[in-house]
Amino acid sequence: MPQRHETTLRVTYRDTDKMGVVYHANYLVYMEVGRVELLRSMGCTYRELEDIGFGIPLIRCAVDYRQSAHYDDLLYIDATMKKVSRRGIAFDYRVTREEDGERVLLATGSTEHLFMDGGGKLVRASQRFVDGLERGEANAHWALG
Amino acid sequence: MPQRHETTLRVTYRDTDKMGVVYHANYLVYMEVGRVELLRSMGCTYRELEDIGFGIPLIRCAVDYRQSAHYDDLLYIDATMKKVSRRGIAFDYRVTREEDGERVLLATGSTEHLFMDGGGKLVRASQRFVDGLERGEANAHWALG
Amino acid sequence: MPQRHETTLRVTYRDTDKMGVVYHANYLVYMEVGRVELLRSMGCTYRELEDIGFGIPLIRCAVDYRQSAHYDDLLYIDATMKKVSRRGIAFDYRVTREEDGERVLLATGSTEHLFMDGGGKLVRASQRFVDGLERGEANAHWALG
Amino acid sequence: MPQRHETTLRVTYRDTDKMGVVYHANYLVYMEVGRVELLRSMGCTYRELEDIGFGIPLIRCAVDYRQSAHYDDLLYIDATMKKVSRRGIAFDYRVTREEDGERVLLATGSTEHLFMDGGGKLVRASQRFVDGLERGEANAHWALG
Repeated sequence: MPQRHETTLRVTYRDTDKMGVVYHANYLVYMEVGRVELLRSMGCTYRELEDIGFGIPLIRCAVDYRQSAHYDDLLYIDATMKKVSRRGIAFDYRVTREEDGERVLLATGSTEHLFMDGGGKLVRASQRFVDGLERGEANAHWALG
Repeated sequence: MPQRHETTLRVTYRDTDKMGVVYHANYLVYMEVGRVELLRSMGCTYRELEDIGFGIPLIRCAVDYRQSAHYDDLLYIDATMKKVSRRGIAFDYRVTREEDGERVLLATGSTEHLFMDGGGKLVRASQRFVDGLERGEANAHWALG
Repeated sequence: MPQRHETTLRVTYRDTDKMGVVYHANYLVYMEVGRVELLRSMGCTYRELEDIGFGIPLIRCAVDYRQSAHYDDLLYIDATMKKVSRRGIAFDYRVTREEDGERVLLATGSTEHLFMDGGGKLVRASQRFVDGLERGEANAHWALG
Repeated sequence: MPQRHETTLRVTYRDTDKMGVVYHANYLVYMEVGRVELLRSMGCTYRELEDIGFGIPLIRCAVDYRQSAHYDDLLYIDATMKKVSRRGIAFDYRVTREEDGERVLLATGSTEHLFMDGGGKLVRASQRFVDGLERGEANAHWALG
């Protein structure tokens, strides 16, 4: 079963635009919060990865917008680790809001990432790190083997 | 021939993140600047469209990241109107930087938009507006016929 | 005793800049989160105020920066309502981080706001609203008397 | 006479908030653009300073808001170098918009900065750098003497 985590997040004023809704680029920020918290829930912070010189830059992203989010909404960011290999990792996202006890889907998205070292060169993560991620144990110190 | 426009844009400090490069979500902002300036070059501002209660919200976006942009880089945002109908409009984008007299491709992207009225309901633009856009004349007052 | 509330907030990637620290303008965003949560803790959301056509725009702000905040830091935003009248309201802020069980001061700030109606005209809030705020009961429906 | 430079800047969609005006924290971003362009006009880019391990972090900022800026407004950012010493530098700012051939004042602001090396320690700039700034010649390579 794919690893998955849900984060809640309150829409702040800066996130809105003059249409009164969340500015579209901010869904990428929300998705990142979901991704970071998914990793944290597995035992590894993005900061720890960076501290050992291991980065996970995006190489692709996509968002489908269904309904608008508004100021002060409490959003649910559901991040799923779709695929992981020694070269990179991919996530799917669902952004929802609760209305009358039901979840309303606001947006879906996906991101693809490659593994890089501190100098910006592509690297292979260790098999141990990949295996850990697959069973939900993300230990930053395993990343580079 | 598809309508097309190139805008230049200087990377500011707030656009960077702690990796020292432009934060990924900001490419959506840059693509919007390119889209808005393409429309302006055809004779129509987004502000005029909004003033008559005509909106062009995103329903989908995607970005492919090739190389990083850095602080103070002068970027070229090339926006192309790929498709327009009475229901909506789609754009493609290329973000480049000049190095040694050559253009280096940093990212490509695409956005899809639907036409909406001020109340958030889908509307059809007039055929005159669509025809105008196709030949490079975007007159905001034609939008609603 | 002045009304006061503390909010916690995790530094996200977009909040950092290429110096690896929180970009200075984002402290204004953090201070806003503190201010909004202080009002919420008293029983009134900013959204409710706007829904009845009552706004609290800034007319002045200032920030003193002491130490940097970093990616993934857990920040404490302490907002205090310093002064309220029928014409406006003022807040003070302290942003801290915990280190070895002690609070380290990162920044202090202040904001001043006037009361406005939906059309952007200055208005006087009701005395009942002012009295409520002073004893920690912010009811949006009292704002316009 | 104090060194001074004016930059023009178009308000983008992301800069607005749901009140339909420029979000208050973005004036700090605009002021930074003005400050960076003032330095560039004197012959020195912020990037060059960073490349030699010389930073100019803020220690204090303040903004007074007079009137709102709106989406697509063309703003004039007037930055003045108010004071410079071997320890730091201070700037004043005026943000205006043209209306009927006249300049309307939207905001004024100020920032204070200290000089730091790459490791975040306070440093003294060379007297040559300070003298250069005072007569409008900012050469990054003079900064550290």
